[in-house]
Amino acid sequence: MAGSGFGTIFRITSWGETHGKGVGVVVDGCPAGLELGPEDIQVYLDRRKPGQSRFTTKRKETDTVEILSGVFEGKTTGSPISLVVFNKDQRSRDYSAIMDKYRPGHADYTFDQKYGFRDYRGGGRSSGRETIARVAAGAIAAKALSQMGIELFAYTRSIGPWEIDPSRFDPAERDKNALYMPDSQAAEKAADFLEERMKQLDSSGGVVECRISGLPAGIGEPVFDKLSACLGKAILSIGAVKGFEIGDGFAVARAAGSENNDPFSMKEGRVVKKTNHAGGILGGMSDGSDILFRAAFKPTPSIGRKQASVTRQGQETEMEIKGRHDPVIVPRAVVVVETMAAVTVFDLLLQNMTSRMDRVVDFYKKS
Amino acid sequence: MAGSGFGTIFRITSWGETHGKGVGVVVDGCPAGLELGPEDIQVYLDRRKPGQSRFTTKRKETDTVEILSGVFEGKTTGSPISLVVFNKDQRSRDYSAIMDKYRPGHADYTFDQKYGFRDYRGGGRSSGRETIARVAAGAIAAKALSQMGIELFAYTRSIGPWEIDPSRFDPAERDKNALYMPDSQAAEKAADFLEERMKQLDSSGGVVECRISGLPAGIGEPVFDKLSACLGKAILSIGAVKGFEIGDGFAVARAAGSENNDPFSMKEGRVVKKTNHAGGILGGMSDGSDILFRAAFKPTPSIGRKQASVTRQGQETEMEIKGRHDPVIVPRAVVVVETMAAVTVFDLLLQNMTSRMDRVVDFYKKS
Amino acid sequence: MAGSGFGTIFRITSWGETHGKGVGVVVDGCPAGLELGPEDIQVYLDRRKPGQSRFTTKRKETDTVEILSGVFEGKTTGSPISLVVFNKDQRSRDYSAIMDKYRPGHADYTFDQKYGFRDYRGGGRSSGRETIARVAAGAIAAKALSQMGIELFAYTRSIGPWEIDPSRFDPAERDKNALYMPDSQAAEKAADFLEERMKQLDSSGGVVECRISGLPAGIGEPVFDKLSACLGKAILSIGAVKGFEIGDGFAVARAAGSENNDPFSMKEGRVVKKTNHAGGILGGMSDGSDILFRAAFKPTPSIGRKQASVTRQGQETEMEIKGRHDPVIVPRAVVVVETMAAVTVFDLLLQNMTSRMDRVVDFYKKS
Amino acid sequence: MAGSGFGTIFRITSWGETHGKGVGVVVDGCPAGLELGPEDIQVYLDRRKPGQSRFTTKRKETDTVEILSGVFEGKTTGSPISLVVFNKDQRSRDYSAIMDKYRPGHADYTFDQKYGFRDYRGGGRSSGRETIARVAAGAIAAKALSQMGIELFAYTRSIGPWEIDPSRFDPAERDKNALYMPDSQAAEKAADFLEERMKQLDSSGGVVECRISGLPAGIGEPVFDKLSACLGKAILSIGAVKGFEIGDGFAVARAAGSENNDPFSMKEGRVVKKTNHAGGILGGMSDGSDILFRAAFKPTPSIGRKQASVTRQGQETEMEIKGRHDPVIVPRAVVVVETMAAVTVFDLLLQNMTSRMDRVVDFYKKS
Repeated sequence: MAGSGFGTIFRITSWGETHGKGVGVVVDGCPAGLELGPEDIQVYLDRRKPGQSRFTTKRKETDTVEILSGVFEGKTTGSPISLVVFNKDQRSRDYSAIMDKYRPGHADYTFDQKYGFRDYRGGGRSSGRETIARVAAGAIAAKALSQMGIELFAYTRSIGPWEIDPSRFDPAERDKNALYMPDSQAAEKAADFLEERMKQLDSSGGVVECRISGLPAGIGEPVFDKLSACLGKAILSIGAVKGFEIGDGFAVARAAGSENNDPFSMKEGRVVKKTNHAGGILGGMSDGSDILFRAAFKPTPSIGRKQASVTRQGQETEMEIKGRHDPVIVPRAVVVVETMAAVTVFDLLLQNMTSRMDRVVDFYKKS
Repeated sequence: MAGSGFGTIFRITSWGETHGKGVGVVVDGCPAGLELGPEDIQVYLDRRKPGQSRFTTKRKETDTVEILSGVFEGKTTGSPISLVVFNKDQRSRDYSAIMDKYRPGHADYTFDQKYGFRDYRGGGRSSGRETIARVAAGAIAAKALSQMGIELFAYTRSIGPWEIDPSRFDPAERDKNALYMPDSQAAEKAADFLEERMKQLDSSGGVVECRISGLPAGIGEPVFDKLSACLGKAILSIGAVKGFEIGDGFAVARAAGSENNDPFSMKEGRVVKKTNHAGGILGGMSDGSDILFRAAFKPTPSIGRKQASVTRQGQETEMEIKGRHDPVIVPRAVVVVETMAAVTVFDLLLQNMTSRMDRVVDFYKKS
Repeated sequence: MAGSGFGTIFRITSWGETHGKGVGVVVDGCPAGLELGPEDIQVYLDRRKPGQSRFTTKRKETDTVEILSGVFEGKTTGSPISLVVFNKDQRSRDYSAIMDKYRPGHADYTFDQKYGFRDYRGGGRSSGRETIARVAAGAIAAKALSQMGIELFAYTRSIGPWEIDPSRFDPAERDKNALYMPDSQAAEKAADFLEERMKQLDSSGGVVECRISGLPAGIGEPVFDKLSACLGKAILSIGAVKGFEIGDGFAVARAAGSENNDPFSMKEGRVVKKTNHAGGILGGMSDGSDILFRAAFKPTPSIGRKQASVTRQGQETEMEIKGRHDPVIVPRAVVVVETMAAVTVFDLLLQNMTSRMDRVVDFYKKS
Repeated sequence: MAGSGFGTIFRITSWGETHGKGVGVVVDGCPAGLELGPEDIQVYLDRRKPGQSRFTTKRKETDTVEILSGVFEGKTTGSPISLVVFNKDQRSRDYSAIMDKYRPGHADYTFDQKYGFRDYRGGGRSSGRETIARVAAGAIAAKALSQMGIELFAYTRSIGPWEIDPSRFDPAERDKNALYMPDSQAAEKAADFLEERMKQLDSSGGVVECRISGLPAGIGEPVFDKLSACLGKAILSIGAVKGFEIGDGFAVARAAGSENNDPFSMKEGRVVKKTNHAGGILGGMSDGSDILFRAAFKPTPSIGRKQASVTRQGQETEMEIKGRHDPVIVPRAVVVVETMAAVTVFDLLLQNMTSRMDRVVDFYKKS
């Protein structure tokens, strides 16, 4: 199915290319009766909109979402919700510099290999604009989750060598700086670092971290559809992600069992864990603690420096990528990580409703 | 669907618990005409069999596979292949020590939360024995892939602080030591380190690495079913995995674009990359280079030390886990990583056959 | 997933309501390189357009399709194809007569039961306009199939008591009369019959038949995804269909095995069947003969006569459905049947490419 | 996925061939806590067991089911339930008469075309023994449904020309005669008729009807996954089924809207329909009335008469099928229809739990 769908019950299908007519998503399986308007989605889209700081492309896109179906009198109807962001900036450009060359770090070569040709306009389907569909769909999932007290909070953990200091962690700070870092000092250092990279016509990678609070225990399925596996797929499907960690992540490889196991204890009549090395997931299911995960993003592959490449016709060449590109993907990817996690968690939460026979019987006796 | 199935065309469905009658898997969608006998599968299962070294549980299980369907006159028929490993060691045990306590680092608590009760015998469905199904199914995928020149090679990259040295990397060494490390010196150091941990009634984590060679370019789907995302889900669905990386992985977060981009060049008339920071995947599709990925495994949660816990009834307690357990999961997980990657890659390779209309037309004109 | 998706490889996702902003479909998994323009789709949509004869609603809808993505330089790119038909006729109406009453034969009551409320404007999601999505997606499948010499031809077989006479069957006649009957005499009789029904403020049912020619043997999967089962699901998912038959259909219940079995023979070096009681399907797979199936459509439930009903508030009431409605669903459903069959067959044809290992190996050796 | 799986949440995966080691099924997604023992399943399997009357093959198979996983202390655990019926009668036979000839009405030819060769032993995967998997899985679904007051009752409606008389319909009679007809007079006539056919070395078709009572309104999804469409696929996937009808079925094609619409009225405070031409389904969703559907089965294709055929090598030939075969498929198919309907309905019932946001929120607030 060419992989444009994600999810089982709450299922999203994305479409669109960067320089085509627009980008959209169909959300099937959203329960009926959720209050929903364009503004619920726009607030998420605005977090990934270009042109908001000196670190993002100057391309002007308002990225205004329209709801084409599935909402009636302000509430979801149970029918598929079709969302679209039409591209405003569709003037024809001169693509001759890139249409026949494979940009290093991009999907130009692999698209040509898979399909025999490609939409060379700005990356086509593999452009970052594809994430508009993810964010729009995830905004709905996030709103639904919040009605059950489940909140997601993603942020920039590091850019290049500059990492947030946990002792200065301030959620409110995240939305105050252009880099979405919840630590103003780290954000300043990172901004200076990026300025330097831009001068060098170069780019930087970074890490996004996400916390999910309020998730009840037991979400996720024990074998192939573990919560960790489904989150991993969701996040690794975002372009430029090369690594994914839950809880202590790669650090567990050097830990001892006695350090890494989280002891159980009781608190106000509930089972809790004294520590959270597991990142809130045991045996693939949520354990009632906060879910904590991280994703590593590679540096923006579009750089102004001269790079070696080849043409479609098989000749070695050199190329410089013109125009203004984001020197780092991470800040605008924060909301993509958060919303993809929302889609994943809400879908598994809905699937989990059928886990116990007594609850199924109760459900139908009541309704 | 409770998450016991994996794959779209080549689809596997696993079943079984550690102390039940056995563990099995149904492989649907395997093309007809592949020569297959139990020995093709057994050789893979033997790589994860317990009781082979001082670092694995002494439990005696021969883990002999039977093919119950789908093979006729030595070849797959296109019908589902049902594989089973019956448990030999089924004597009843005394589970009173663990049936009412939640073992730290295990899925006991989350199973109870999800289902209302659990099969407390040795972990039930969340036991490592569940991976028998993965390995058996993956052995078939690996055999099919090898007919197209595609080979997978996984190995232990590190145990605790002891990592293989690339300059001493020797594939033939992998199967000569109990730790499946392709570097005899690192294996020796790691073995000493594990002996020490065992004396301390403790355990260690580690890293498995896997290389896939011979994969043509264009495998994987561009958006949600990227090769990286599908491999990530496959590997993160293995119990105890807490991190996953492709190519340079988390190191990309500190890299510059000019370092991380792999320049293209020509070699013997073919497009190649001069470096492989990308780990063989661009835009979610294979780029013709080797695929390289890593998985971080947490330390075995079953340790002999005294740990704080709680009972099902909500009382704080302490527990020591008796019996001999593997002090590290990694060596026996190597083949699990390799076979899950085989399942993933073969499924995406089959899906990819429909990517171009001219090839579809050709296929049906010929056949 | 709320059931708005259909297919495995060639997968369509439909959205939209009758009196909302429009109706659309996302087609994922269409092979790249198929020449495609709006006109390829429009010609199919025009066959279901209202306002073309005295037997269809007078509502004016041009039903013009737009391609929003997935086509570049006149060819499909392998990316999802997003199609939309915006509703022109969106003026607000007075729905007070139906918003609180359950129309007999319609989905008003069941929608309210499932979702707690419904979009009462003209049936919302359960309107016949939903089939626009099916026809648009199926037009693409039909074009792809035709490139392999596979053709689908559906027509009205009967309306009320008036059935086509096989001896007068004339394919060219189908598109010449308003009822899509390939027999001008039957069409005339049926037209008179419908005029009578309309005078009585009543409606009629009928039967659509479809023939698929050129399909190679072996398409369909042997157990649950039989070609007959998948066609059956596709056709029974069209609103108003209450019966489905393959080949001799219900007549087989009275036949003897010696009559019903189709003997094999040789013709020009190929295996053929002397008869085709099976309708081209044996063991769930195409057998190389023409596929022949039928669907029974119920009479249009919207009739002008007074009917007994109840209100949402649970009070008995009566209602007359105002306005002009099609007195029979069948003529405009002909193209819906044909295109749903195209979607089904193309998807199974793509799935079938992986049935033999030697063909898979060949495919990758060549490419 | 080669089509051996069925269902979304309650998902069954079948495997096995008639003359192989056995036939089995893995049931994933069954809620935990359902009391289940082999006897719950055996009682259904016994209804399709051969050797019980003069109208079934004499082959002796006890068809004893074993539960290999997913049940602990007498209750389902939420893990996959693996069921197997090992074949007892596995002695090697002489297949030379059929291995190179294509039996008319069978899948021999289509299997060879799809896969390049086939398991020629007794039909292999396309044998009626494949339905053991369906019945075993469906027994679990039926037990779960009965806990919510939902009951399924299938029976033989007709054999050849002999149909039950509604005025003599007696459910208790169904299990008293070899033909599973709930009308003793019709059963007698049909038995005589079958004796005659057997003397003529011939066979007969027939119709199975099924009623589902107690199903709440709103089950089924509005567009592609209509209850009627899903039931249709389930039933049309049973070998030998050539037609499927809901409610009045094909008779609606001749009905008027004023006859076919079921008027609503109130009864004891609940909305009811005065008639049930719709067979309990409106807009693809259950309407609270009984679901009623029918399936047409073709005559057993294995007949003793001489038939024209061809060899694998492409030579015309004749063949007589030796041995004792059931002269009619219908009686043993009754339980297959009933259980496939149970699987379908239970799966849709579980999917339906997520249809309303307020119920989702309630569910998680309580649990």
